[in-house]
Amino acid sequence: MYNFCNRLAVRSHLILAPHHSHPAPLPMESALFSSSPLSAFVPRSPPSLASRPLRLLSLPFSLLIHHSPPPRGGPPLLPRRLLRRFSPAAYADADAAAASAAESRSSGDRVVARPSSELRMGRPGGSGTGVAGDEKLRSLRELFARPDVAIDAYIIPSQDAHQSEFIAECFMRRAYLTGFTGSAGTAVVTKEKAALWTDGRYFLQAEKQLSPDWILMRSGNQGVPTTSEWLNDVLPAGCRIGIDPFLFSHDAAEELKEAISKKNHELILIKDFNLVDEIWKSRPKPPGKPTRVHDIKYAGVDVLSKLSSLRSVLVENGCTAIVISMLDEVAWLLNMRGSDVPNSPVFYSYLIVEISHATLFVDNNKVTPGVLDHLKSAGVELKPYEEILSEVESLAAKGAKLWLDTSCVNAAIVSIFRSACERHFTRLATKSRKQLNNGASSDLISIKSEDIRNGIPNGLYKVSPVAIAKAVKNKAEIEGMKNSHLRDAAALSEFWCWMEQEVKNNLTLTEVAVADKLFEFRKQQEGFIDTSFDTISGYGANGAVIHYKPTSDSCSFVGTDNLFLLDSGGQYVDGTTDITRTVHFGEPSAWQKECFTRVLQGHIALDQAIFPERMPGFVLDVLARSSLWKVGLDYRHGTGHGVGAALNVHEGPQSISFRFGNLTALQNGMIVSNEPGYYEDHSFGIRIENLLLVKEVDLPNSYGGIGFLGFEKLTFVPIQSKLIDTSLLSPMEIKWVNDYHSQVWEKVSPLVNVAVRDWLWRNTSHAACWTLKSRGKMRTQLMSTCLILSISMFARPIKQQSPPSYSFVLEPEKSYEALEVKKRVFLRINL
Amino acid sequence: MYNFCNRLAVRSHLILAPHHSHPAPLPMESALFSSSPLSAFVPRSPPSLASRPLRLLSLPFSLLIHHSPPPRGGPPLLPRRLLRRFSPAAYADADAAAASAAESRSSGDRVVARPSSELRMGRPGGSGTGVAGDEKLRSLRELFARPDVAIDAYIIPSQDAHQSEFIAECFMRRAYLTGFTGSAGTAVVTKEKAALWTDGRYFLQAEKQLSPDWILMRSGNQGVPTTSEWLNDVLPAGCRIGIDPFLFSHDAAEELKEAISKKNHELILIKDFNLVDEIWKSRPKPPGKPTRVHDIKYAGVDVLSKLSSLRSVLVENGCTAIVISMLDEVAWLLNMRGSDVPNSPVFYSYLIVEISHATLFVDNNKVTPGVLDHLKSAGVELKPYEEILSEVESLAAKGAKLWLDTSCVNAAIVSIFRSACERHFTRLATKSRKQLNNGASSDLISIKSEDIRNGIPNGLYKVSPVAIAKAVKNKAEIEGMKNSHLRDAAALSEFWCWMEQEVKNNLTLTEVAVADKLFEFRKQQEGFIDTSFDTISGYGANGAVIHYKPTSDSCSFVGTDNLFLLDSGGQYVDGTTDITRTVHFGEPSAWQKECFTRVLQGHIALDQAIFPERMPGFVLDVLARSSLWKVGLDYRHGTGHGVGAALNVHEGPQSISFRFGNLTALQNGMIVSNEPGYYEDHSFGIRIENLLLVKEVDLPNSYGGIGFLGFEKLTFVPIQSKLIDTSLLSPMEIKWVNDYHSQVWEKVSPLVNVAVRDWLWRNTSHAACWTLKSRGKMRTQLMSTCLILSISMFARPIKQQSPPSYSFVLEPEKSYEALEVKKRVFLRINL
Repeated sequence: MYNFCNRLAVRSHLILAPHHSHPAPLPMESALFSSSPLSAFVPRSPPSLASRPLRLLSLPFSLLIHHSPPPRGGPPLLPRRLLRRFSPAAYADADAAAASAAESRSSGDRVVARPSSELRMGRPGGSGTGVAGDEKLRSLRELFARPDVAIDAYIIPSQDAHQSEFIAECFMRRAYLTGFTGSAGTAVVTKEKAALWTDGRYFLQAEKQLSPDWILMRSGNQGVPTTSEWLNDVLPAGCRIGIDPFLFSHDAAEELKEAISKKNHELILIKDFNLVDEIWKSRPKPPGKPTRVHDIKYAGVDVLSKLSSLRSVLVENGCTAIVISMLDEVAWLLNMRGSDVPNSPVFYSYLIVEISHATLFVDNNKVTPGVLDHLKSAGVELKPYEEILSEVESLAAKGAKLWLDTSCVNAAIVSIFRSACERHFTRLATKSRKQLNNGASSDLISIKSEDIRNGIPNGLYKVSPVAIAKAVKNKAEIEGMKNSHLRDAAALSEFWCWMEQEVKNNLTLTEVAVADKLFEFRKQQEGFIDTSFDTISGYGANGAVIHYKPTSDSCSFVGTDNLFLLDSGGQYVDGTTDITRTVHFGEPSAWQKECFTRVLQGHIALDQAIFPERMPGFVLDVLARSSLWKVGLDYRHGTGHGVGAALNVHEGPQSISFRFGNLTALQNGMIVSNEPGYYEDHSFGIRIENLLLVKEVDLPNSYGGIGFLGFEKLTFVPIQSKLIDTSLLSPMEIKWVNDYHSQVWEKVSPLVNVAVRDWLWRNTSHAACWTLKSRGKMRTQLMSTCLILSISMFARPIKQQSPPSYSFVLEPEKSYEALEVKKRVFLRINL
Repeated sequence: MYNFCNRLAVRSHLILAPHHSHPAPLPMESALFSSSPLSAFVPRSPPSLASRPLRLLSLPFSLLIHHSPPPRGGPPLLPRRLLRRFSPAAYADADAAAASAAESRSSGDRVVARPSSELRMGRPGGSGTGVAGDEKLRSLRELFARPDVAIDAYIIPSQDAHQSEFIAECFMRRAYLTGFTGSAGTAVVTKEKAALWTDGRYFLQAEKQLSPDWILMRSGNQGVPTTSEWLNDVLPAGCRIGIDPFLFSHDAAEELKEAISKKNHELILIKDFNLVDEIWKSRPKPPGKPTRVHDIKYAGVDVLSKLSSLRSVLVENGCTAIVISMLDEVAWLLNMRGSDVPNSPVFYSYLIVEISHATLFVDNNKVTPGVLDHLKSAGVELKPYEEILSEVESLAAKGAKLWLDTSCVNAAIVSIFRSACERHFTRLATKSRKQLNNGASSDLISIKSEDIRNGIPNGLYKVSPVAIAKAVKNKAEIEGMKNSHLRDAAALSEFWCWMEQEVKNNLTLTEVAVADKLFEFRKQQEGFIDTSFDTISGYGANGAVIHYKPTSDSCSFVGTDNLFLLDSGGQYVDGTTDITRTVHFGEPSAWQKECFTRVLQGHIALDQAIFPERMPGFVLDVLARSSLWKVGLDYRHGTGHGVGAALNVHEGPQSISFRFGNLTALQNGMIVSNEPGYYEDHSFGIRIENLLLVKEVDLPNSYGGIGFLGFEKLTFVPIQSKLIDTSLLSPMEIKWVNDYHSQVWEKVSPLVNVAVRDWLWRNTSHAACWTLKSRGKMRTQLMSTCLILSISMFARPIKQQSPPSYSFVLEPEKSYEALEVKKRVFLRINL
């Protein structure tokens, strides 16, 4: 309880500061409020608050939180989209930051690019709503007593019904209820208490945004209980704990159920209405923008073929149907895209694929005539989004054997199917086998399983087969990814060229302004739709915060004294990008260069890895860390996550991480990020990220007949050579940098204008080379490694005579080209 | 059945060949014999055999097998100890080859070295026993009907009661019964059939040694059932399947029980006698050689301290006692050594450690007065080996909470404890709590667990805490390992020096003779006791057989045309060694050099690894393979196993392997082998093995306050530089080889005579260097890497003038020493 009171005190201090600079210490939380919702108006303590009714108290607090700091609109402007993001697939402790609320707009099939910063202003529970926190809690608690509710506590997670990383505003119930707008958090409300769990990146924000009615639970801090531990602690045994089963995956709900059963609590699935929605007066409408067809030239495989493959897998597994609830799986399978949530081109829907037909559950108004034709030709029917449950029930009635990935399909769907199964099992078992064998419904195909033949519904609870099918890209998807990466690289080259100048002239260039400018450059590229996540733009110490989220408090001006880390990505019609570069616009310290170089060595080692097929990604993780480990450094996130093709920037099932749990093998055609880093608290952050395509490699041997895989780079943007300490690199590593930069030059230089081309030349030529003094005043950068051994002797100042001739040094039998730029000659030797 | 008949036919062919060159095809095995043991004398088939009673038939077969090929004693002599061994901890599909049966002899505390080849002649079931195979089977089956047996099948594994890698002759029951003397195999006898399972390395041997009464089950081949699958197949439902529960770990017995329960078979634990022992007429006596005290100067920690630490762990875990059954754990804990089995200095015993006292279950005649004093002073009592079960029972009666590592403690002990628990639970539960709290037996200490307070016996089934304590070496053990490795290195230098000469002069030098000679060299070293495993001596194609076991059929002469792989180790009073070197005495091909170099690169990468503490070994495995993977090569075994200090050459719990299951973290003080390899079927084998000490490293940083670990080499024997293709190596790798050879020279040269010193100098100087032509006729080998960039330009033939001066090349500010050997000057530059 000591820690607990302490925590309360800290929060009160922070919030009350303007009014009560020395708040009295608070007594035990359990005594703060009586158990009746009505008596909540008469708090017994703390003494400093007891003199005023909470209703009155809460209003000023609400105003304080939302109208006082930070002021809106003042310079520097901090669009919501700059909330930091971190990959859930690759990173250890991160949910992706999906806190920003807005819609990317597209009109019909026409894609219109608008900066997400512009679109994501309104926030649920934000300023100006005028509804006091306690009023919401009071309303919510009143519902507890309703006969059709009858619960003692309610859990409000951040999720939507599809486990999406980015969610629509209308589903931000936790944010509405608590006032806390961070992307990650779970609220729990009992009749007497209200608590919010969030993780380290949001402690400060939550302290500011939560009213005193809320207890802040700092997840990850020692001694902080989990939600279920807390419920088991504060509630008397045998309580009824309610959840909206749409907002929990089945597995998560089961885990919760198990955990609270220790105190004989019962988990109540309230599926007919969400309690927060009931009290949410001006709840935004669900997103209703039209969907579009994802062109077959980008999708590569038509919907019928995809459905046919899926149906084969269903039959192989003795199933007659599958419920698909992950939005990117629906979008991929149907070659459709939408704009219901920020950063991901998906739309709210469910899909049920049966052996003979398929049904898309989506709001009719999202389906244009073009999309309708597209769906019809693939034999996909439409039903309203809300009918998913009744359809699942009727599938059970028809004796379906239903594939459900319980790690992502929500508890509402799984539980309704299970109880339907139980009901029908009894009924069907009484019918004679013979009758069923002859008179099975037309939807049932003849498959091996006896259960199916007998028409008894049953569930197969297994990882969705669509996830892996989607992860292994086809030719057109790979082509689209490659093309979009080149356009993205052009935009980034333009951006960095601009930035290099701007940072020297503009002393008030903020991290947010930089991200906005990058958005402008990307927007000019063909087929650009939106960012693929909220840009992480971190200068100096901010770069060291892996989950960095610029706010007016923390946002810095970008200068020339420290490292600048920029992690960003774009959604294009043909692909999705994700790239991180770290640069220094002044003079990096030797230590920064060493750290950068070691991160680069890890990046190179993973990039160059060759490995047997059937190898899970975690086996390779050590390659990206070894160079850092050599000097006692490391980073606390994974090294790689999957990336969708014109879809979610984070997708499974593969990953490259120090966590050994994910046994998914890397496969030819998968795309992963390669993003080792190093973060020095309060100082700087470094990350170098490219996307890689997993590819079969042709080797001189094939031990045991096993195929070998390697990586092909998709990202082509210079790595700042200024930050590389070449003395740490091996000749192979030098060669890697030079080869990479040669490729960048070849691929990107035709896509940019002359000024940017000059920048690109300088940034792909300077690269990781020994810079040699020759006889004259000419400075030479050599681009090859097989010459390095011959050349490096000249790297030292030459005291006596110059070397016999250049012919020896440059190996004239190799061709090379020279370019004179500003009185300097650059030599590129083509090997 | 096709395969099955085929297999029988092949076997018959091989055995019958001298008499029946064209044996008639055999009918289905299931029809071969009737179900009654008596009617076994009248086989219904095969026709070719049916005319003779089996009793008569079997005698000639027995003679044929054991007296005909291979003739004994003919040149080349092939002592049994050259049976190949492969590490169970490190290798994928290997049990260690423990097939050789003998005793290393020591008399009292005096250690006497004798070649194990000399000691391991007599073999159970071998030649001259005169007992026909079928006679044994008949006798065994007769026992099935005895009222105190009453079983339908009996399983005879290869194990002793302690899961030992090497076992005493008297426990080689499977070998006695079947006639098959390979180290790995399981026999299953039903009333009608008899089958033997063994793996690929023994197929040929088993075909030769098994009588036609036996079905050979080739484990690992497609379609070959497991023992339990086979039993479920051939027996009618609901049979009683007997085992000797001493010979199965509890976990293995449970797994078996589960598997056969699918056909409603019951597992019968026959603990009072072993059925094979009952029919084994002249069964060797159990080993009875005296044990000895392992000197505290080698053990480092006295027995009382070890017991005290163990007792703390017991108390922490709420236990009152532990049964230790692994022989190396007993030996380590009591600072004792023995010679009951080959290669490992252990003795048959159990140890029970309670909070206030400890009991060693061992034959009295193994305990000399010196050992007795040693034990007494540590408070260890003696009881006969056989009393283990009754003691476990009485522990249960006293309400002990007993720690049992069910992965190694045998099923006899675990099951007797469990049933005793059940009995006592009922009885004790009726007594009042109060009475028990006050009147608990003196053996029970007051620990937290309520169960214990209540005097209810209970088991904690968890990995033995002794395993990890033993694996983490103390200062004295490390010292002993280092010292013994230097003496071993001296012996190996002498050996290789001899070998290099011998192989050129002796055209009939066999793999076996080589191993014998190595034994002679080791024997001359102080404190040498025995080999630590059966030497693997493989020339050419034999080196490619990972489980190579020289026999008169497969044994080759060692020549100068191919690679020679030698994997061997020694047991010394102060340490245990295990080293593999691969050499070529002629001119290796470019391909062999590439393969060797890639194996070496893997070896170096693992050797040089730095990694955070708490990292399981498998994370590092990829480092040893990457260089091979780059060109599509690999090896099918793990990379490292634990090694005991003057104990078993293979010990857990740590390992470095591609298998992800072993999550044991590498810890400061552990010892592991580093032995990547490459094996080209029918051509050659390469393995380079050093032992490494896991050691804390002092780094400039400590990210997140985490300690980092690295390796220190224990093995110091030259790696043949002739086999290194330096063009594949990075400067760092070159430096590694040079630094290693410098260390070898420094550490080992003082321990050898002048002739060997010369060999050592040549083999540590030639190393992995660029060999440069200078102006004169002098040939120069440069030993440093920081010069490489400056020097390599001279590696090409110099056409014009020579380089300005040597001073530039050699960096004269660095000291170097030169040695002239046979008109060649060798330079060692000390950096």
